Amino acid sequence: MGRWPAGATERLEQAAMELYQKRGFENTTVAEIAERAGLTERTFFRHYADKREVLFAGSAQLQVLLVSLVIEAAPSLPPIEAITAALAGAAAAFEERRAVVRQRQAIIAANPELQERELIKLAKLGAALASALRQRGVPEPAATLAAEAGVAVFRVAFDRWSGGSDELLLSEIIRESAGELRAVTSAG
Amino acid sequence: MGRWPAGATERLEQAAMELYQKRGFENTTVAEIAERAGLTERTFFRHYADKREVLFAGSAQLQVLLVSLVIEAAPSLPPIEAITAALAGAAAAFEERRAVVRQRQAIIAANPELQERELIKLAKLGAALASALRQRGVPEPAATLAAEAGVAVFRVAFDRWSGGSDELLLSEIIRESAGELRAVTSAG
Repeated sequence: MGRWPAGATERLEQAAMELYQKRGFENTTVAEIAERAGLTERTFFRHYADKREVLFAGSAQLQVLLVSLVIEAAPSLPPIEAITAALAGAAAAFEERRAVVRQRQAIIAANPELQERELIKLAKLGAALASALRQRGVPEPAATLAAEAGVAVFRVAFDRWSGGSDELLLSEIIRESAGELRAVTSAG
Repeated sequence: MGRWPAGATERLEQAAMELYQKRGFENTTVAEIAERAGLTERTFFRHYADKREVLFAGSAQLQVLLVSLVIEAAPSLPPIEAITAALAGAAAAFEERRAVVRQRQAIIAANPELQERELIKLAKLGAALASALRQRGVPEPAATLAAEAGVAVFRVAFDRWSGGSDELLLSEIIRESAGELRAVTSAG
């Protein structure tokens, strides 16, 4: 068991992660998470809607951050560049949480229901990014194609960063993956 | 009510679609579908695992078809071209079913649970296409990037074809969307 962080949100997250990893997500109750964090169930529900939300609260925050970064990106940037810049800009938020991210990925990989939830979150992220591009005046289908391609870049980069022993920063891997996407789609 | 097709699978599909559209997916039972098709519930379950499967049996068939088309595509084709050729090749199967497809899309759009199911199917299609590309010897991350970009092209083209009054064939719209993807990703 690692050191206990100060805030209730973080304490609950750490307790949940440890229990999910030890016993499996499905065998862990909110009561157990709260107890391990030294808090009450009531406090848990002030911070998270349910035990699944502990794993996906970050996805919602990420989406909000990425959408605002896309909207605020320099107006001169072409759509795919606005997306890549937003992804690289959001990457810093993950950098210091690599151990937690890795733990989270392992928990999700062990549970088909959580895997489906992750896929849905990524699909919704794609739709949100397309909407942000349209707010920049990008027409369809360019907005959807750039947004979906951006999500693919993010997934590839994120998997490499979280799973590997890579010394590169996530933002660097994102830029590299964006270059690989360009190479792949321009072939032929 | 349209003319009744001969096969039990098609009769059940048509009956289900009509009921889903009329009463909503959630308010329709298997017993009602079977009755409307002039068949028994037992027969229903010989053709479909559940009432949701009526809407998604085609997704599974599409995935099998696309994977085999990708694997069998001319070895000289670059990954994104192999994907586009497979998508365009599979498009013919949809051409004569445009009315049913449109009905299906409306049913799915009316139900969040079905929308999530559709997103998951598309995400799984992406993973299956990436695997097919790896069988062609395409390394990662090129395989995943090309496959995910291909799914984005398919979604965009499929929405335009099924929703619009477009005179183009689905295969033509797919080729056009693939060109738009190339334009989008090469910008910047």
